[in-house]
Amino acid sequence: MLSRNQPDTRDDRFGAVDAAVLRELRSIVGTGHLLTEPGDVEPYARDATPLYRARPDAVVAPSTVDEVAAVLRLASRHRIPVTPRGAGSNLAAATVPEHGGIVLSMTRMNRLIEVSTAELLAVVEPGVTTAALAGAAARVGLLYPPDPGSRTVSTVGGNVATCAGGLRGLKYGVTRNYVLGLQAVLPTGEVIRTGGRLWKDVAGYDITRLLTGSEGTLAVLTEVTVGLLPMPATSRTGVACFDSLSDAGEAVTRILSDGILPATLEFLDRRCVNAVEDYAHLGLDRDAGALLLFGDDGDEETVAANLRRMSEACRDRGARSVELAADIAESEELLAARRCALPALARLAPITMLEDITVPRPQLPAMVGAIDEIAERHNVVCATFGHAGDGNLHPTIVFDPADEAARERAEKAFDEIFRTALELRGTITGEHGVGAAKRAWLAARLGEDQMALLRRLKSAFDPAGILNPGKLGS
Amino acid sequence: MLSRNQPDTRDDRFGAVDAAVLRELRSIVGTGHLLTEPGDVEPYARDATPLYRARPDAVVAPSTVDEVAAVLRLASRHRIPVTPRGAGSNLAAATVPEHGGIVLSMTRMNRLIEVSTAELLAVVEPGVTTAALAGAAARVGLLYPPDPGSRTVSTVGGNVATCAGGLRGLKYGVTRNYVLGLQAVLPTGEVIRTGGRLWKDVAGYDITRLLTGSEGTLAVLTEVTVGLLPMPATSRTGVACFDSLSDAGEAVTRILSDGILPATLEFLDRRCVNAVEDYAHLGLDRDAGALLLFGDDGDEETVAANLRRMSEACRDRGARSVELAADIAESEELLAARRCALPALARLAPITMLEDITVPRPQLPAMVGAIDEIAERHNVVCATFGHAGDGNLHPTIVFDPADEAARERAEKAFDEIFRTALELRGTITGEHGVGAAKRAWLAARLGEDQMALLRRLKSAFDPAGILNPGKLGS
Repeated sequence: MLSRNQPDTRDDRFGAVDAAVLRELRSIVGTGHLLTEPGDVEPYARDATPLYRARPDAVVAPSTVDEVAAVLRLASRHRIPVTPRGAGSNLAAATVPEHGGIVLSMTRMNRLIEVSTAELLAVVEPGVTTAALAGAAARVGLLYPPDPGSRTVSTVGGNVATCAGGLRGLKYGVTRNYVLGLQAVLPTGEVIRTGGRLWKDVAGYDITRLLTGSEGTLAVLTEVTVGLLPMPATSRTGVACFDSLSDAGEAVTRILSDGILPATLEFLDRRCVNAVEDYAHLGLDRDAGALLLFGDDGDEETVAANLRRMSEACRDRGARSVELAADIAESEELLAARRCALPALARLAPITMLEDITVPRPQLPAMVGAIDEIAERHNVVCATFGHAGDGNLHPTIVFDPADEAARERAEKAFDEIFRTALELRGTITGEHGVGAAKRAWLAARLGEDQMALLRRLKSAFDPAGILNPGKLGS
Repeated sequence: MLSRNQPDTRDDRFGAVDAAVLRELRSIVGTGHLLTEPGDVEPYARDATPLYRARPDAVVAPSTVDEVAAVLRLASRHRIPVTPRGAGSNLAAATVPEHGGIVLSMTRMNRLIEVSTAELLAVVEPGVTTAALAGAAARVGLLYPPDPGSRTVSTVGGNVATCAGGLRGLKYGVTRNYVLGLQAVLPTGEVIRTGGRLWKDVAGYDITRLLTGSEGTLAVLTEVTVGLLPMPATSRTGVACFDSLSDAGEAVTRILSDGILPATLEFLDRRCVNAVEDYAHLGLDRDAGALLLFGDDGDEETVAANLRRMSEACRDRGARSVELAADIAESEELLAARRCALPALARLAPITMLEDITVPRPQLPAMVGAIDEIAERHNVVCATFGHAGDGNLHPTIVFDPADEAARERAEKAFDEIFRTALELRGTITGEHGVGAAKRAWLAARLGEDQMALLRRLKSAFDPAGILNPGKLGS
């Protein structure tokens, strides 16, 4: 279930992290990079998902691929669970070490190895933050498009492990579209290289993409090669307010049918607008049923023309107001409304449960309508924002964890929300991952035959089942 | 080896297609859709790869997913090899049924189920040709970007099975970037659905991408959902001639460093230019060491500006001449030089062996130089053309198959070409696939540990090893 404070789920099939194992771990990474004291390992018992917690026996921070391979060989030999972890910003409890064992903290492997303007690519270790990669690319005029909300703290390794998305998914695609090559260590210790510095390569099965989004269950990433794009000359944003989300949805359809694939197409529902306004006093229209942020990047003329056309589409669909940023600075101000949606909602109650469904784009108004109905019926406070262009919604329920009944109502509401998303031909997670938080719904999404296939794939990589056990495929 | 006329490689582990099996097959697909006479099955003994041939025992043409599942269950039960096949335009002998058995011809499943302008996607059966899909999309103002040279005959199913590329790979990516969802039948008969009508979906391992490029060894595709883009308003092409390929390579680097990601960036070497001129009399510069075609699509102003900047980059890098098409019709004329490279070379000798290496973009001149040196040393006629933007080259050796010594020289030359590509951190196939033709070099590309992983993945899908045996992972 969703929101239980889980006890550590120890399992007979796994071996113990005993003194001999600790001695070996210490000899691999050095004393300073092995944590075992309860107080030291406690921060690794959680990630950014509320209510999930399970303490590892040891935290190991390797600095080289050889150290990673040595740790994994040791863990395989003793059947000790190993949970790889980047910044721990995951929102699906994918990095909570439910079976204890070793947390493999990858943040020491944070070298930015290379940015090549001639090859339009970068090579990084997995512990580099997404923002550091994007910044290094930007300094030489290149764009790394994936921009998850967590990008200032989340790591490239974590982004690849979850196939992170972000605000630019519709125009630019998600992390998988930019991963060209990987170095990875199999749970049994072999080091493989997949793909490389190539934009076209079909030699062998697509292990690069299979590892992307595998949530640390198949291999540990030790190096990532990503493709980059030329930096667009400019970008600009506009904002439109609508009476209802269904009006906003019609404007989105109109924009896309008009031959524009915008870089930004984000929405906030009424409750989000009000929470943001309470929090940041941006002067938003509190009576609007939905706020739509639209934007594009590229050459000056194209961007100006596209913004004009998008404004017209919004007005044609009955927008209460449409405002265009005059420049990049004003664009950033408009985007602030979207960027502070989560902190604004987080102020409403101690627990903020942020979910991550996707539905086919035309179903967006129906899905948001269903979320509102479900929330009202279960008497929970739920606000929804997300990516209108790709149908990826973040319904967010806030409550007080001390209120057991409220927690149960939140669980029931999310269960209905997931099932409604599936009925609308959507999915239970667009960009956060399945982790522990959504595994109860995975079979409903994939079917039992595909679940069995996932387990066979997992075994093909990890016969002993030591890598992030309990998650995808295990 | 590359170019032996192979006898059918029967194998004890497989069962025979006997009278009882034929009776069952007939009852599944109907009498008219089962071929067994030697003359009838002979066309399915080859694909578009010279010199490979192996006759199947039966050719079965199903028309529904249920028929595909029934054939696969039958084949699994009797351990009969099954080789799925679209149009048979593969260039790596990936659809040659080396172990006999059943060829599953998917061309009857050619319904274009849906093109949705609201969702920017299409749903097709696998036997639809790429050109038919692209045409249906274009009629409602949408673009299906992958454009392999074979697109008028090749099927979407075949394109997905090989992760086909084409001329627009740099700007638009390859087939994998557009596959949103699949319906597929596992060799054991289970029908799975992966992905869907969603641009963001991370629920489960990325089976969609794993099947893309799996060359019919893991599952049989029965339905494909692809993403589409708004059709660009216009497109235009220019052509530049250079004294040497290395000058052209510098112009390419200059263009990309200048912040342009062009839709087209193709080159022909001197021998190609002359073969094309002999064939099509386009008025090309026969003394040029390399011809570079460059082009872009998008809004009128952006395209005009980019073409101007690309022309300048070519002139700055010492182009002998630069010519810009005035409109789309003239652009098509210029592109004809590239599109007729293969037929022009095919006239030179009875056998045209077209290869498909990729190297990191800056290595392109070095690779072409090495190809020329290798060809000269082995006394073979070799011309090279390809995608300068993504480093994907098609060195093409022509010879007379009656000349056994020439064939051996071609084999030796290709072996050195592949090894040189790998030394330059490239790959043995960019977009055609490994098939039978390149499997001898696959381990050199992937390493033994990854080869073992491929075999384990194959077993996870296909425990009896019936699906396209001898290819990837078997």
